[in-house]
Amino acid sequence: MAERDGGHDPSADTCTIGLDYGTNSVRAVIVSCADGGTVGTHVFDYPSGERGVIVDAADPHLARQNPADYVAGLREATLGALADAEDAGFSRDRVVGIGVDTTGSTPIPVDAACRPLALDPRWRANPAAHAWLWKDHTSADEAANITEAAHVHAPEYLAPIGGTYSSEWFWSKIWHCLNVAPDVFAAAASWVELADFVPAVLAGASDPRIIFRCVCAAGHKAMYSPEWGGLPSRGFLARLDPRLAELRDRLYDEAHPPHRHAGRLSAQWAEELGLSGGIPIAMGGFDAHYGAVGAGVAPGTLVKIIGTSTCDITIAPNTAPLGDVPGICGIVDGSVMNGYYGIEAGQSAVGDLLHWWIDSVCEGDDTLHGTLSDEAAKLRPGESGLLALDWNNGNRTVLVDPRLTGLVLGQTLGTTRAEVYRALIEATAFGARVIVERLADCGIPIDRIVCCGGIAAKNDLFMQIYADVLGRPMLLAGSRQTPALGAAISAAVAAGPDNGGYASFENAQARMTSLRDERFDPEPGARTIYNELYAMYRELHDSFGGVDAAAADFPTLMKRLLGLRERVAAAGAGAGAP
Amino acid sequence: MAERDGGHDPSADTCTIGLDYGTNSVRAVIVSCADGGTVGTHVFDYPSGERGVIVDAADPHLARQNPADYVAGLREATLGALADAEDAGFSRDRVVGIGVDTTGSTPIPVDAACRPLALDPRWRANPAAHAWLWKDHTSADEAANITEAAHVHAPEYLAPIGGTYSSEWFWSKIWHCLNVAPDVFAAAASWVELADFVPAVLAGASDPRIIFRCVCAAGHKAMYSPEWGGLPSRGFLARLDPRLAELRDRLYDEAHPPHRHAGRLSAQWAEELGLSGGIPIAMGGFDAHYGAVGAGVAPGTLVKIIGTSTCDITIAPNTAPLGDVPGICGIVDGSVMNGYYGIEAGQSAVGDLLHWWIDSVCEGDDTLHGTLSDEAAKLRPGESGLLALDWNNGNRTVLVDPRLTGLVLGQTLGTTRAEVYRALIEATAFGARVIVERLADCGIPIDRIVCCGGIAAKNDLFMQIYADVLGRPMLLAGSRQTPALGAAISAAVAAGPDNGGYASFENAQARMTSLRDERFDPEPGARTIYNELYAMYRELHDSFGGVDAAAADFPTLMKRLLGLRERVAAAGAGAGAP
Repeated sequence: MAERDGGHDPSADTCTIGLDYGTNSVRAVIVSCADGGTVGTHVFDYPSGERGVIVDAADPHLARQNPADYVAGLREATLGALADAEDAGFSRDRVVGIGVDTTGSTPIPVDAACRPLALDPRWRANPAAHAWLWKDHTSADEAANITEAAHVHAPEYLAPIGGTYSSEWFWSKIWHCLNVAPDVFAAAASWVELADFVPAVLAGASDPRIIFRCVCAAGHKAMYSPEWGGLPSRGFLARLDPRLAELRDRLYDEAHPPHRHAGRLSAQWAEELGLSGGIPIAMGGFDAHYGAVGAGVAPGTLVKIIGTSTCDITIAPNTAPLGDVPGICGIVDGSVMNGYYGIEAGQSAVGDLLHWWIDSVCEGDDTLHGTLSDEAAKLRPGESGLLALDWNNGNRTVLVDPRLTGLVLGQTLGTTRAEVYRALIEATAFGARVIVERLADCGIPIDRIVCCGGIAAKNDLFMQIYADVLGRPMLLAGSRQTPALGAAISAAVAAGPDNGGYASFENAQARMTSLRDERFDPEPGARTIYNELYAMYRELHDSFGGVDAAAADFPTLMKRLLGLRERVAAAGAGAGAP
Repeated sequence: MAERDGGHDPSADTCTIGLDYGTNSVRAVIVSCADGGTVGTHVFDYPSGERGVIVDAADPHLARQNPADYVAGLREATLGALADAEDAGFSRDRVVGIGVDTTGSTPIPVDAACRPLALDPRWRANPAAHAWLWKDHTSADEAANITEAAHVHAPEYLAPIGGTYSSEWFWSKIWHCLNVAPDVFAAAASWVELADFVPAVLAGASDPRIIFRCVCAAGHKAMYSPEWGGLPSRGFLARLDPRLAELRDRLYDEAHPPHRHAGRLSAQWAEELGLSGGIPIAMGGFDAHYGAVGAGVAPGTLVKIIGTSTCDITIAPNTAPLGDVPGICGIVDGSVMNGYYGIEAGQSAVGDLLHWWIDSVCEGDDTLHGTLSDEAAKLRPGESGLLALDWNNGNRTVLVDPRLTGLVLGQTLGTTRAEVYRALIEATAFGARVIVERLADCGIPIDRIVCCGGIAAKNDLFMQIYADVLGRPMLLAGSRQTPALGAAISAAVAAGPDNGGYASFENAQARMTSLRDERFDPEPGARTIYNELYAMYRELHDSFGGVDAAAADFPTLMKRLLGLRERVAAAGAGAGAP
């Protein structure tokens, strides 16, 4: 059954389709251009692997996806959403454009016809020939080597992406493929991000050299910038491996912001989907970026997509150059909306931190979240005497350091599980404040925060703590499917005002996005206490995070403890099971 | 039914009675002088208050006891133990002495006939007229004022007791009585420690001025030392309150080590108990001290009495003066055995720390200790990457600071409750090592550790971790009732060799104490890892404990967090319930 926002009449106006490629499934949403209301929706679960992810029992870092699932999902999710809408009298000719958002960086090796290698029976059984899902971490060594090489030879490449190249990103993965599966690397005519692949499929592209690459993936994950002529130089890539330098010529010279077209719907797909041929296909983009669009991102508005981790997105006018914002993972002109720098940050564990406490420590079921939230809501700020660091999964922003761990301080013999639960929420809020303050320090002030995601929608305590810690109103996006909505908005912009769409993202957002009525405003008393607690958090943050110059020469205690742990694990592996 | 150690024949030899006054009950144990075996035993639960403790719903710090329970318990426990022994053919004329150990500091206001005021109907309803149980903490302000006054005017008073006078101790309690119940204070002819009171009762003493006071209570809790002429000077006490200076004259000039007699069994009590009149009553002492005697304390042997908290006792020959041992709560000549300095340290939370994790966080029952211990035993040292501070109840030794709190560091999203459980055990072991190293640094080397208490006896993992962290063999006392056994040993020494006893504590211990066969020796591999972890523990210990001189001017983060917590609590109390 379709989920429909508000009382929108689906027979009245133009619509666009947003396709949201997630980790386990793809969702198609048909959206009204008049008000952003959902007209029809359908979810297709990827059939391959474990819930859509190809894994390797011998290597927990491996996570791949079958490109066949993407193509099947394109068809099934779209047809399902159309059928869902038609149940309520919808007509397919109202669709004026299609937009796509995906996970990323999720690069796919393709042949000269832009066909994924994995679709070829010769390569089907080789995981390296499939899509390298965003959360594949097999290329940690390559990432470290890229970071090191860039620090020495091209520090400008790292400045806009937070100073550290990640194992989750484009070049790390391709280089790792070259190292572990050189046959796959050799067979690949090019590599295409999933966000560029799906629009190319819809547009019937048959040559990877001429498909449109989005600046979102290129700028945030592939060290692309017009400042240095596109992708990293041949010389730099040759330092890593000469074959990467050769690959550069088979990738792309230019990437495009989201208001451009990626093409027009091919006759074949128009027929298959029962849609009008030639309707525009918008540039693809990452789920977080289009999610921010769908949540109403604007200068001064930070969108927080809160899930197991968070992705924080804001934009700033590109009329004046931005200086470096140390520790922010990405600042890319046009990556979210044309005319603005897209600015991306993130916290490595938010929902996961609370789930860890509930699942692994309390060994409770999901209802315990509600129980502990209710109990924690009765506590006043500061009452528990607890303070925590939210680093159980490292720190993505602003320390950009996966080798950090959690800390809880202030326990007495009377400390309760609900008190720790609250302290963990507070820790993530303090982590969020570090990001907001870093943005403000670098000329990107944030006035309000719009949240998407289940935790934000379900947990009033969480939202109030964030309002009190951040000292800014916390708002909730009106849509529950902001990435798909953002993709649909991009399609409305691609369609343009003459075809029932919009001339700009701003215009489309004004009509198609909304906020919920609920909002959470800072409470002055709580704010005062949290200012004190935050100062203490910063002290822990800076000392254990190694921010102090004095600590830089000497690994912090947290790192030495991790080093010991790794040596013990290595010794144990050598000696057999304990 | 009696608990009997080994195959001892109860009809053969002389016996002594050890009376062990605990927090909830008094236990009488009849012990063979030949081998320390138990011949009969009986426990009497104090009938007053909550499990023997008079509490005040309005003041959680108040803990008093009814002296009538002590007298009733003296009779009932002793008669019960005798009856128990007689079931196996025992004859009462074999008893050659009685020894007593008690909690402390537990001072009792008495009248001129050495009768507790609380036994007088006029005072019975007034909690201030009852015994002030060791864990009564109503006198925190007085303790702080005594510490401050002594720092300025008589620092020598604090040197042997760790530098801080406690609210659990003699003068704090009496001064608080003077402040809150001046009528009780005025009515008291003197104040007698429970450890001195019970022997005085047995000896039929009727004047508090002439009863024998043990150096154990005097030296560890009342700032008594022959060096400065006994109790604190009149001048010092007058600074606190002139009426305390007047009280000094009604207390005592000399305190006695444990090999002296406290008197001989009075005719009345001999008749009541069916024992021979005139048998010696040994000097009383604190449970921990006589527990150490019963566990075989000796130079180089540290006895750890491990319960909710720990009490650590060792002795050092008094042939050469000991320097200061900063942070050790007590060093008193003759307090444990004559000829030795008695040295006392302690950890504020050991069993309590594990119970906290099980009860308050995991919300498990007692069986979870076994489950988590089994799981934790499979981990190798360092494998969890966790490190904790054992300060959930402050730190007694060597920081002597109740205003410290717990810390757990190194959590990931995979951290389990069993890993934290092990990290908490390790934290207490590191805390134990700090004490042992401080002793060694001050010329009191420790070669081996003998443990008493349930955790030690029941939990092999706990013992092995201690052996590995401390780098010393961990042994278990043979008796399960080491305080009562130690008190019985004191009675055997009081009886002397001519009466079937012993000439010295050393001689008595050689025959009457034992160790269990089980022992836990350090494992070199684990030891190496724990040395590294201990260095990191010390780093946390010194920085959060404020050991660094640089930190001394600025309250550590832990203290500022506690301060904030207290301000929030105070504000909440003012504003009504949250």
